[in-house]
Amino acid sequence: MENRLNIVSPQNPRVKAAVKLRKSKNRQQAGQTLVEGFREILRATESNWKFNELYFCPELYLDTDASKLVSTIHESGIPVFQCSEPVFRKMSYRDTPDGLMALSPLVGEKLAELKLPPNPLVLIAEDLEKPGNLGTLLRTADATGVDAVIVCGHKTDINNPNVIRASIGTLFFIPVVEATTEETLQWLEKHKIQSLAAVPNASNKYTEIDMCRGTAIIVGSEDKGLAFKWINQATHQVGIPMLGKNDSLNVSTAAAILLYEAIRQRHKGL
Amino acid sequence: MENRLNIVSPQNPRVKAAVKLRKSKNRQQAGQTLVEGFREILRATESNWKFNELYFCPELYLDTDASKLVSTIHESGIPVFQCSEPVFRKMSYRDTPDGLMALSPLVGEKLAELKLPPNPLVLIAEDLEKPGNLGTLLRTADATGVDAVIVCGHKTDINNPNVIRASIGTLFFIPVVEATTEETLQWLEKHKIQSLAAVPNASNKYTEIDMCRGTAIIVGSEDKGLAFKWINQATHQVGIPMLGKNDSLNVSTAAAILLYEAIRQRHKGL
Repeated sequence: MENRLNIVSPQNPRVKAAVKLRKSKNRQQAGQTLVEGFREILRATESNWKFNELYFCPELYLDTDASKLVSTIHESGIPVFQCSEPVFRKMSYRDTPDGLMALSPLVGEKLAELKLPPNPLVLIAEDLEKPGNLGTLLRTADATGVDAVIVCGHKTDINNPNVIRASIGTLFFIPVVEATTEETLQWLEKHKIQSLAAVPNASNKYTEIDMCRGTAIIVGSEDKGLAFKWINQATHQVGIPMLGKNDSLNVSTAAAILLYEAIRQRHKGL
Repeated sequence: MENRLNIVSPQNPRVKAAVKLRKSKNRQQAGQTLVEGFREILRATESNWKFNELYFCPELYLDTDASKLVSTIHESGIPVFQCSEPVFRKMSYRDTPDGLMALSPLVGEKLAELKLPPNPLVLIAEDLEKPGNLGTLLRTADATGVDAVIVCGHKTDINNPNVIRASIGTLFFIPVVEATTEETLQWLEKHKIQSLAAVPNASNKYTEIDMCRGTAIIVGSEDKGLAFKWINQATHQVGIPMLGKNDSLNVSTAAAILLYEAIRQRHKGL
């Protein structure tokens, strides 16, 4: 590969700048985030996502197509930098780096600019604390063809590298918005989208609600569930049967059950 | 509380013995594991699980009922040990310990001794690698009233403290068995339980299968999915619609979708 640049010093300013992006404040300031891993970078590239830069280290490749992916990205005009193993390990935030890391513009669309089809299916996540849960939610949102994901509250930054990782790069092709609860409630009303608040012990069972019309499914924080504002203002409170002794499900599990019920109702032929 | 023993030295042999239980080999040798956290210990106690010993540190309590729980366990005749904060922090495997840790006999029943109702619902997990995924599966198995969980392969030890943690203690009241794939296949045949192998792109959609009869849902490892042996010998291969660009769901998400479909079919009134 021609024109690639080599980095062998861990003191290289590019390396230091990449490491700084692990902090939310620095990501906002730089307007970019880190994407590590073959699968994540491949998924983003397949959906024509434009990275700012790519760093690679062939000594650490775990996937046979890693080199091909680097060539594809390089040929699309994105600067690529080959790193020595110690340099790459310094940049990596994984236990087992696979030799690929990209710097990416921040992800996130504006609520007012979202384009929706008729009878959209929307997922709203409030105050999630664990990046892994938000990432898994995004993966399920992709699988169910959700039209938009709205993240309310600021406990998890959607551009956290661990969100991107747990989403396996699906973050790059689902419309994702950060918005306040107020803005989101107004937006739902304006677009006449019914809102279903997932609440333990609600009298409406989730299978009893017609989810074929425009529907937003709302899930809340791992520890505290949904805020009262959501519970009070949602069109329906919906419960998922709990037949055991424990009183709650993992938040991404709950969202998946509700989203796949919407799909079951909407695509009877599937 | 009378008769409690105080531990102030991190060199105390009990402290060293507890720390050793983080390793699978040592757990097998000692025949016991670690259970940390208020919710996990509460759930186990509520289901009459008998711990071997309890360690507590009031300076670290995060839950107002922690002291009451320690008294309940103490009164049931289980030895309790009050620890200084440095001692408890040494024993703890959490970032934010909440001052409660129990030593517990190992969990795990024998396949041949499982007691099943008519038309049981069983969950089989093969070769899961991440303790968090196995724990989340157990939490969903509790919520769906699964009659037994069978763990095949030895990539994750069911007595791993992080499995117990992610299961929020549900591990203590669901029948859980470790068995080989061969043993499990024979057991399914003997008990005339249909097996549904979750496979991407299967022609049978999961909503088309009658799950009211005795049913085992089988999910495979995060990276590789199910082994050929399972796919070939299962009664049905079942697929979950994937409407997006990614080609797989999180394993505990997939299991939840299938288990809740079984519940929907079995409890139409729910």
